[in-house]
Amino acid sequence: MLNGPNLNLLGRREPAQYGTTTLREIEEAVSELGRSWNWEVVCFQSNHEGALIDCIHNACGRVDLIIINPGAYTHTSIALRDAIVGVAIPVIEVHLSNIHAREAFRHHSFIAPIAVGQIAGFGADGYRLAMEAARHYLTVRKGVPV
Amino acid sequence: MLNGPNLNLLGRREPAQYGTTTLREIEEAVSELGRSWNWEVVCFQSNHEGALIDCIHNACGRVDLIIINPGAYTHTSIALRDAIVGVAIPVIEVHLSNIHAREAFRHHSFIAPIAVGQIAGFGADGYRLAMEAARHYLTVRKGVPV
Amino acid sequence: MLNGPNLNLLGRREPAQYGTTTLREIEEAVSELGRSWNWEVVCFQSNHEGALIDCIHNACGRVDLIIINPGAYTHTSIALRDAIVGVAIPVIEVHLSNIHAREAFRHHSFIAPIAVGQIAGFGADGYRLAMEAARHYLTVRKGVPV
Amino acid sequence: MLNGPNLNLLGRREPAQYGTTTLREIEEAVSELGRSWNWEVVCFQSNHEGALIDCIHNACGRVDLIIINPGAYTHTSIALRDAIVGVAIPVIEVHLSNIHAREAFRHHSFIAPIAVGQIAGFGADGYRLAMEAARHYLTVRKGVPV
Amino acid sequence: MLNGPNLNLLGRREPAQYGTTTLREIEEAVSELGRSWNWEVVCFQSNHEGALIDCIHNACGRVDLIIINPGAYTHTSIALRDAIVGVAIPVIEVHLSNIHAREAFRHHSFIAPIAVGQIAGFGADGYRLAMEAARHYLTVRKGVPV
Amino acid sequence: MLNGPNLNLLGRREPAQYGTTTLREIEEAVSELGRSWNWEVVCFQSNHEGALIDCIHNACGRVDLIIINPGAYTHTSIALRDAIVGVAIPVIEVHLSNIHAREAFRHHSFIAPIAVGQIAGFGADGYRLAMEAARHYLTVRKGVPV
Amino acid sequence: MLNGPNLNLLGRREPAQYGTTTLREIEEAVSELGRSWNWEVVCFQSNHEGALIDCIHNACGRVDLIIINPGAYTHTSIALRDAIVGVAIPVIEVHLSNIHAREAFRHHSFIAPIAVGQIAGFGADGYRLAMEAARHYLTVRKGVPV
Amino acid sequence: MLNGPNLNLLGRREPAQYGTTTLREIEEAVSELGRSWNWEVVCFQSNHEGALIDCIHNACGRVDLIIINPGAYTHTSIALRDAIVGVAIPVIEVHLSNIHAREAFRHHSFIAPIAVGQIAGFGADGYRLAMEAARHYLTVRKGVPV
Amino acid sequence: MLNGPNLNLLGRREPAQYGTTTLREIEEAVSELGRSWNWEVVCFQSNHEGALIDCIHNACGRVDLIIINPGAYTHTSIALRDAIVGVAIPVIEVHLSNIHAREAFRHHSFIAPIAVGQIAGFGADGYRLAMEAARHYLTVRKGVPV
Amino acid sequence: MLNGPNLNLLGRREPAQYGTTTLREIEEAVSELGRSWNWEVVCFQSNHEGALIDCIHNACGRVDLIIINPGAYTHTSIALRDAIVGVAIPVIEVHLSNIHAREAFRHHSFIAPIAVGQIAGFGADGYRLAMEAARHYLTVRKGVPV
Amino acid sequence: MLNGPNLNLLGRREPAQYGTTTLREIEEAVSELGRSWNWEVVCFQSNHEGALIDCIHNACGRVDLIIINPGAYTHTSIALRDAIVGVAIPVIEVHLSNIHAREAFRHHSFIAPIAVGQIAGFGADGYRLAMEAARHYLTVRKGVPV
Amino acid sequence: MLNGPNLNLLGRREPAQYGTTTLREIEEAVSELGRSWNWEVVCFQSNHEGALIDCIHNACGRVDLIIINPGAYTHTSIALRDAIVGVAIPVIEVHLSNIHAREAFRHHSFIAPIAVGQIAGFGADGYRLAMEAARHYLTVRKGVPV
Repeated sequence: MLNGPNLNLLGRREPAQYGTTTLREIEEAVSELGRSWNWEVVCFQSNHEGALIDCIHNACGRVDLIIINPGAYTHTSIALRDAIVGVAIPVIEVHLSNIHAREAFRHHSFIAPIAVGQIAGFGADGYRLAMEAARHYLTVRKGVPV
Repeated sequence: MLNGPNLNLLGRREPAQYGTTTLREIEEAVSELGRSWNWEVVCFQSNHEGALIDCIHNACGRVDLIIINPGAYTHTSIALRDAIVGVAIPVIEVHLSNIHAREAFRHHSFIAPIAVGQIAGFGADGYRLAMEAARHYLTVRKGVPV
Repeated sequence: MLNGPNLNLLGRREPAQYGTTTLREIEEAVSELGRSWNWEVVCFQSNHEGALIDCIHNACGRVDLIIINPGAYTHTSIALRDAIVGVAIPVIEVHLSNIHAREAFRHHSFIAPIAVGQIAGFGADGYRLAMEAARHYLTVRKGVPV
Repeated sequence: MLNGPNLNLLGRREPAQYGTTTLREIEEAVSELGRSWNWEVVCFQSNHEGALIDCIHNACGRVDLIIINPGAYTHTSIALRDAIVGVAIPVIEVHLSNIHAREAFRHHSFIAPIAVGQIAGFGADGYRLAMEAARHYLTVRKGVPV
Repeated sequence: MLNGPNLNLLGRREPAQYGTTTLREIEEAVSELGRSWNWEVVCFQSNHEGALIDCIHNACGRVDLIIINPGAYTHTSIALRDAIVGVAIPVIEVHLSNIHAREAFRHHSFIAPIAVGQIAGFGADGYRLAMEAARHYLTVRKGVPV
Repeated sequence: MLNGPNLNLLGRREPAQYGTTTLREIEEAVSELGRSWNWEVVCFQSNHEGALIDCIHNACGRVDLIIINPGAYTHTSIALRDAIVGVAIPVIEVHLSNIHAREAFRHHSFIAPIAVGQIAGFGADGYRLAMEAARHYLTVRKGVPV
Repeated sequence: MLNGPNLNLLGRREPAQYGTTTLREIEEAVSELGRSWNWEVVCFQSNHEGALIDCIHNACGRVDLIIINPGAYTHTSIALRDAIVGVAIPVIEVHLSNIHAREAFRHHSFIAPIAVGQIAGFGADGYRLAMEAARHYLTVRKGVPV
Repeated sequence: MLNGPNLNLLGRREPAQYGTTTLREIEEAVSELGRSWNWEVVCFQSNHEGALIDCIHNACGRVDLIIINPGAYTHTSIALRDAIVGVAIPVIEVHLSNIHAREAFRHHSFIAPIAVGQIAGFGADGYRLAMEAARHYLTVRKGVPV
Repeated sequence: MLNGPNLNLLGRREPAQYGTTTLREIEEAVSELGRSWNWEVVCFQSNHEGALIDCIHNACGRVDLIIINPGAYTHTSIALRDAIVGVAIPVIEVHLSNIHAREAFRHHSFIAPIAVGQIAGFGADGYRLAMEAARHYLTVRKGVPV
Repeated sequence: MLNGPNLNLLGRREPAQYGTTTLREIEEAVSELGRSWNWEVVCFQSNHEGALIDCIHNACGRVDLIIINPGAYTHTSIALRDAIVGVAIPVIEVHLSNIHAREAFRHHSFIAPIAVGQIAGFGADGYRLAMEAARHYLTVRKGVPV
Repeated sequence: MLNGPNLNLLGRREPAQYGTTTLREIEEAVSELGRSWNWEVVCFQSNHEGALIDCIHNACGRVDLIIINPGAYTHTSIALRDAIVGVAIPVIEVHLSNIHAREAFRHHSFIAPIAVGQIAGFGADGYRLAMEAARHYLTVRKGVPV
Repeated sequence: MLNGPNLNLLGRREPAQYGTTTLREIEEAVSELGRSWNWEVVCFQSNHEGALIDCIHNACGRVDLIIINPGAYTHTSIALRDAIVGVAIPVIEVHLSNIHAREAFRHHSFIAPIAVGQIAGFGADGYRLAMEAARHYLTVRKGVPV
């Protein structure tokens, strides 16, 4: 599970908007859920575009699927997109808020066109849904056609 | 659960792309899942924009949440959007395919900005995820902030 | 008098925004006003684009003028526009809200360029104004030049 | 009642398009109608953007509502819009011709988004309709929601 | 042969522009031509987008080719396009008028990119040309590559 | 019959896409068809925009109708358009491939708005259809209104 | 001869760009030329959009043709355009500099589409050319068709 | 110091937004500050575009620098821009509100590209900052390079 | 004097629009005028973009100024523009009709930004005006500043 | 005080454009000014978007206001914007050059809409002005309304 | 090696920009380099779009690769692009100047998307680089993937 | 030689598209080629935008020319562009793939307008070509004019 810029502020930043659950708590809940399925979940967060790319490169050959919330880099980072295509690991894109209901510059995602799918607007619960989606995707092992 | 135009073809139409599960089977699986939670799930599909609007109007005061896959009307129907706003029932938007990875005219949704959230790209499993999202949403009863 | 999608919700839907007058009450007031002028007013509302078109076709040769609030179809329906041009009946376009002050996608009307004129932003009173405009138009029998 | 550039030509300019009624005649008719309601109607016309703004400023605290036909300044004057917002007097926008059926540069109005409503396409009769709308608006004293 | 909204007005509506031939007469001529080739031609017209989609669905597995004049839905209906793709029946698109010479909003067709070809501007004779094109297409059974 | 740039390659160039029929064979078939109607068909092909214009000028007063496939000049040549308007000869526009299903820069035609009509997507058969359309057009002698 | 904003600076403002001839000198030269043809030339300059409009209104019925350099109002004033159309006097548009070679916002003229013609880029000599054009236009009395 | 349309309303108009300081008070504060530096500050406000231009022309050769808040003319007046370029006096552009955070049509300034710099969003204090900026600019006498 | 595509049709093509003067007559009038000034005027017309470019290249070092009416190539030919820049001969651009009052695709000129100036809308008289402009330009030998 | 990419080059990079003052000297001057007001000023510069975000996060709860020159990230970094919104510290945006007078891609700022205000075009003196603005803002403690 | 319009001016035209090497000298240098590799290099230049297309057609089956500098036709000629695709010969696109640093209308190339690659900005040396690139391409015989 | 994000994956990532040569191998080949010319080649790759900028800053005064493949930052990084301009070192831009033949968002380069030139589409051989270009550029020491 990969989280992009400013997601380390979760629970502290704009609690009225993003809730009081911290990223640490989300990571633990996701890891716990993974453990119940005998999955090993590795979590990483960074505000550095390059660090996120490095992390994706390192995942090459080691992970089956990436759940990613690229934060603001969703809308600006072609490099992140290329990294994902480069390592050829399926990704599921998650957004806490409903990006389609916010400013116009948040409507476009460079990641979505190369992702399995996108889940947006369900807050922290979105990560659980992404885990569920990942489990189904990896079990059936037959990606959703585009 | 509301399904828009052409979704009645599911399982028959472009099986390579949309899988072999029929809409009937999806509706049954969703209803079954709902029953296990003591929910009553009502399913409706139509190719008629007006019939979908009528159905939404009828749901007013009777349902707690709508899971909707508006099909192609996602991109063209302001009337559908107004109907949802009019009855003030929360909706979760589902798409079988990853609409963000298809033709440009499928990237914009008139429904998304007034939906709780959007789930796209997970095929028939997207309806199950929407049910999970709905359960969490209705339990916590505190919508995802936009 | 023709009313488009979601206008049947009037009085129930978003009362804070659209007031508590129902469409039935508006239709009665308009008919009453018409009767005081020895006019016969026929009212029709539908959420179905096709039904509105059928209704316009049927009006051909039977009515002198149509007061239309096309609701959301204002912004998306070229078919409705073609129907009006096809029957060659003058129309007056009414909107409850000031569409020019709302979302950008509500600023454009496919109907306005082929209407006699447009009245927007005066709530239910707009229908009365349209009746007044119609009376003047039909009396002088000399359309407002464009 | 405020009239913008070139409206002093009414009756003389392009009679085939704008009719033979002069602005003076319209102002008298409107004033007469106002008097029948015990209203005092003040009329002003100018080809100068600044003079129209000065006039609006002077109206501050003295008038209950402005009926304005901003002529060509409708499409180009942000200053006029700011003047209206500044004095916080409700305005009703009138256009003789159906601006939505003319050149594309006449489709956008800087005034409409801050007006109560807009009446366009009914020729000189549009001013009477605006008076009717104003009477209803001021009586009910509850603006049409936007 | 499928005809969309307002085509039922043919012969009555704007005769100066669309001629005096009625849709009934066109359907009969086309059927007659088909019979001379031992074809069975089924004709349907509707002003309802949904009814057109239903009709296309019903054609699945029963017809070899659809000649369609989608009328105004040409420019607005993604649902119609999806229906055609869904049933995988080749379509030939016909327009009475030369849509490329009319308003800008009539220049784009959602149907054309998934049609075998398009014939526009030849009036009622366009249906005969489409029949000729269909015969050649079905005989050679090798569509024009796109 | 006028053919523009690269159409001399027909049958040789991209046979998978454009078939194996050569331009010579098409010209002969069209001429033969014309002869059967007692028409004289003159064929010309050039890769030079200026040569095509010269040819159209020379046709002034000598031919009743031009069937033109302007090739790539369809999308770029205003001069060709002006030449056709200048000689006031009706033209029928033909395209082998369905230009509406190809790159965006092929969707616009400078010729279409001044043509009688357009036939696209039927391969070499399109020329036969154009001949049929021409015969009907010249017989009825009453062009399809635009 | 009508000159718009900032043209009173001629000869003083940016002499390197606009030369050292003053507006007074140009007006005298033009008047002198007019006198040699037995014309009466009236000159007016203002930085006020409204004053230019007033002046055009006053010219109604008194002048045969207006030579206008609207300065920056060329690109922003619809009111000026409407004034010219309103009085129905032919205008010839002059610009000292080649506006097509300057900033993009100077490429569009609201006046040009309703002018007889436009002369741009010849400095003060442009007024002489406009006088020559006016003489020919008024002599032949048959405007250049558009 | 030059102030454009509606700034005479300061302190009266929308006090919640623009504060209660009047333009008179600002002018006095700025003049006072100028006096403390031995500067003579001349203040002018007008709602007339032409009057602002006249004023700038008159400043030619008499003032060292202009502090201008062009109000709504910022976004629409090329004539004002040309006036400033014409007299070749450096200007500093001030806005009370943060125009970059308001409606899109307020984001573009015709003045900014030819100004020394722009100060926006600091309310009445912006004029003091502009005075400070002016003092530094005139002292160092070496403008900020663009 | 250089004339582009379709100008050889002058006097024959659309006489209602372009008058009955032939290109030959214009060329003779211009040559005659030139002779009266002791100028040698060379005239060339072609429908071939390449031939026009060749002609401009040949003019290099031999002519002082080119009067050009590039016809439709005005709007599409960057090659023509480059040829003019390449030979560094000043050009004056002429158009018979007022291109700014015609279709939008005729509003942009690739030639204008590198021309001395443009004269449009005065019919055949435009060539005489261009000759006058050329004489003044070559006499004063000081280009019109841009 | 936060400075973004390439600002470490100040004084060395393009001295003709940006002057010879180094960033170190600016930081010292600003700190000195702050000390004279009993403020503690912390300065940070980085070419790394992530490092700037980290720095803003660390400032949360520790600083009263941020003066930021985001350099090129002004135009591309939504992440930086989100970081500022996340920590809810008021920011004042500074630019050395007048970004509104440079390339179009520098006209838009992702930071400005969430900043108190913007100061651009005054070189190194802009930081002093920002300090002055900050002092007034923090003293009055009543932000400039947007 | 194919050179488009105005490249015959090389060495003569704008020497400050394009250097003093003539096209003849470049062709000889390229031929010489080819000879040293036992290649036969054929050179052609024309200002005629059609002649360039004819030349490409003639190359079909005779040459292994084309080095092309299409000059201004780069940006306007779809016909040239189609010719290259038609003969299925790999092309390498060369530009003397850095087209990406010039006017916006030179940034787009119709040739680039169907070329092996593009070399721009290295002056006459670009042809040598293209020869080097061609040698490597033809040796490895494995095109650069797109 | 500077390489941007994801280029460390070369040889591993998408071998079908980018070949099997690793970045290490390319760096060695380039260094080897440099050594044969008595050049010292320094190679650096990073996925961090900031690290690339730091590296460019460090190169200031130490290197004669930079060969850069900015990867995805080509299309998004104004900061990288500013860094290059800041250190005033000539750069040659290289792309493995033909970016002009890929997604639209890869067609624009922020680097190209300030580079000497661009080489795209020749795979790993592009670096050799860039070295050749650099040698010629540095030898002749006279940059390619733009």
